[in-house]
Amino acid sequence: MAKSVSREEMRKKLKELGLEQAEKIEKNENPSIAIPVRGLSNVVFDATGKKLDLGEKIAKRYMFHTSHARKFMQTMIVAAFCEELISQGIHTTLRDVYYALKHTLPGTKENTIEEQVESDHAIVDLEVALDVIRENLHLAANPKGRVVGRVIVKDTGDTIDWSKLGTGGWAVPSIIEQVEFKEIDADYVLVAEKDAVFMRLHEDKAWDKNRYILVTTAGQAARGTRRLLQRLSEEQNLPIYCITDADPYGWYIYSTMKYGSMALAHVSDRLGCPKMHFLGLSISDIERYDLRNVTIKAKEVDIKRGQELLTYEWFKMKEWQTEIKKFLEKGYKAEIQALTSKHLRFISQNYIPEKIKGKDFLP
Amino acid sequence: MAKSVSREEMRKKLKELGLEQAEKIEKNENPSIAIPVRGLSNVVFDATGKKLDLGEKIAKRYMFHTSHARKFMQTMIVAAFCEELISQGIHTTLRDVYYALKHTLPGTKENTIEEQVESDHAIVDLEVALDVIRENLHLAANPKGRVVGRVIVKDTGDTIDWSKLGTGGWAVPSIIEQVEFKEIDADYVLVAEKDAVFMRLHEDKAWDKNRYILVTTAGQAARGTRRLLQRLSEEQNLPIYCITDADPYGWYIYSTMKYGSMALAHVSDRLGCPKMHFLGLSISDIERYDLRNVTIKAKEVDIKRGQELLTYEWFKMKEWQTEIKKFLEKGYKAEIQALTSKHLRFISQNYIPEKIKGKDFLP
Repeated sequence: MAKSVSREEMRKKLKELGLEQAEKIEKNENPSIAIPVRGLSNVVFDATGKKLDLGEKIAKRYMFHTSHARKFMQTMIVAAFCEELISQGIHTTLRDVYYALKHTLPGTKENTIEEQVESDHAIVDLEVALDVIRENLHLAANPKGRVVGRVIVKDTGDTIDWSKLGTGGWAVPSIIEQVEFKEIDADYVLVAEKDAVFMRLHEDKAWDKNRYILVTTAGQAARGTRRLLQRLSEEQNLPIYCITDADPYGWYIYSTMKYGSMALAHVSDRLGCPKMHFLGLSISDIERYDLRNVTIKAKEVDIKRGQELLTYEWFKMKEWQTEIKKFLEKGYKAEIQALTSKHLRFISQNYIPEKIKGKDFLP
Repeated sequence: MAKSVSREEMRKKLKELGLEQAEKIEKNENPSIAIPVRGLSNVVFDATGKKLDLGEKIAKRYMFHTSHARKFMQTMIVAAFCEELISQGIHTTLRDVYYALKHTLPGTKENTIEEQVESDHAIVDLEVALDVIRENLHLAANPKGRVVGRVIVKDTGDTIDWSKLGTGGWAVPSIIEQVEFKEIDADYVLVAEKDAVFMRLHEDKAWDKNRYILVTTAGQAARGTRRLLQRLSEEQNLPIYCITDADPYGWYIYSTMKYGSMALAHVSDRLGCPKMHFLGLSISDIERYDLRNVTIKAKEVDIKRGQELLTYEWFKMKEWQTEIKKFLEKGYKAEIQALTSKHLRFISQNYIPEKIKGKDFLP
């Protein structure tokens, strides 16, 4: 649901929220906020838009209501704090919000916030109520991921050439709203779950030879990296291909980048990447590339996860059903590094170019 | 023990290892390698050099010996593989070594390697036997960490200005042997355990105003980041100050960067940073900065860890004994973000400058 909003729009939304409450108080009405329900009962898969989204259910939260009062207060102090962050031009973390707002109410033994989970909930309530994402509220998640490629960006006054960063690459920041793409000389984006794949492809300068932007998420993708991928896909119209291990965990990492996650269904519009394709590793690849000898026996938890994936709306396509069933039937999984058993540069010189050339992807 | 060696020295050492075995075979002797013992029984704290190190115990591993043969073979195939990596100019990961070397011996059902732990052991055996570090063998760990500052480095042909990388910073690579420092305009290095601290100090451009190099390890420091810190300390003679949470886990992260770890005692010379100081957060800081209200009750595991730290040789200094005992007595810990309860820029504008000015460090 949530769309990106400018700093001015964000401040306007926060101001309106406050004015609305002030008005109710003046009219002797009970102050309240309307908040879309975030439970799993209200998470729907939008097959047309290819994303997980929140449904229509909305709940009202009142100031004068024994079971709402505390949460109402928390939502309001978080809103006031975020307005302060934005006006000062400061970004901060969810953890910092907790520490900054935790205090004892004067003359009582009552704390505004006991555990961070309370301020975290208030933040997400604010996101869905105002239809924005936390980055607009100047709240940042921990960053993770690195990128290289023939791309020049501008970020807070600096001009950064992603092709001239040595072996390290650019550390993807938590918030990339301010990043401007100045020059892009690449045909597509390749995103790897694993640092090891990034290292191999970067050392071989495969991204330079084959003209792609190379990103590693280093595991489950951080919000900053997801947003970067989305902007490359949506704004820059670049195809995106994803490489993970051949196991349900890897495929779920892919699906989270593509469609969003159940826990963050309200931000799929801002973090999802519906045009992403899955390049590999698939269970079919294990046969095609003769990797049987370097597979790993699937654990019980892998099997359970595979059975769950089978039931998800966004894995209902024939190709994925076939893949997942094949996984359950064979009972083995493989890591992307299994390709190393062919030869060290097999992934950069053979596997990826062949897959791209043959358009051999899963949806 | 291990010192950095050049590519040529490394190849020479590997060649000598092979020639030595060939010679023994020609003389009808039993081929063998001498390997320093790596168990805790052979880990010593070198108080003069301020580092954990391996003791004098050495074990011999024979080819014709029922309980050595398999390990001997594994060490030899790893050595041959690394020689191949170096000659091809390729770096790779421990996981890739496992996949590249795992195969079934012709005419048998015996695999060269069953689990990765076997090839990992062979790699460390090779490190200690040849007195090198795995980076010299062209083996890389997963990278983690980012850096900013008024520094210009050269890395594989690229010139990188750490002060002009926008909000992201330079992603510290796994191997930084090839990094050359071209220009450094900074008085010291500040290394933060947490991304959130990096974010705050970077957004406030505190490293620019106060002339320091800012590094985040994002948790326990990766080998590449440790080596980078060591090079800044030893080669560039920059003082290094460390910021972690006020808890035994944070202090242990500090001590690992400073002295090395028990598991990697053989590489302290290459990864340790004996001149590092601890800036905070200390338990004393909780009183001094009136943070009592934002402390967290120590868990049983924290207490246990604290009791362990008390007994470590490298925490025997009076200052640390006092700190750790205070922690055990008070029974609370605090995160570095607790400083946010003062105000958002307290850490960048007050805490760090005051600590540096007052030379208020722990050893």
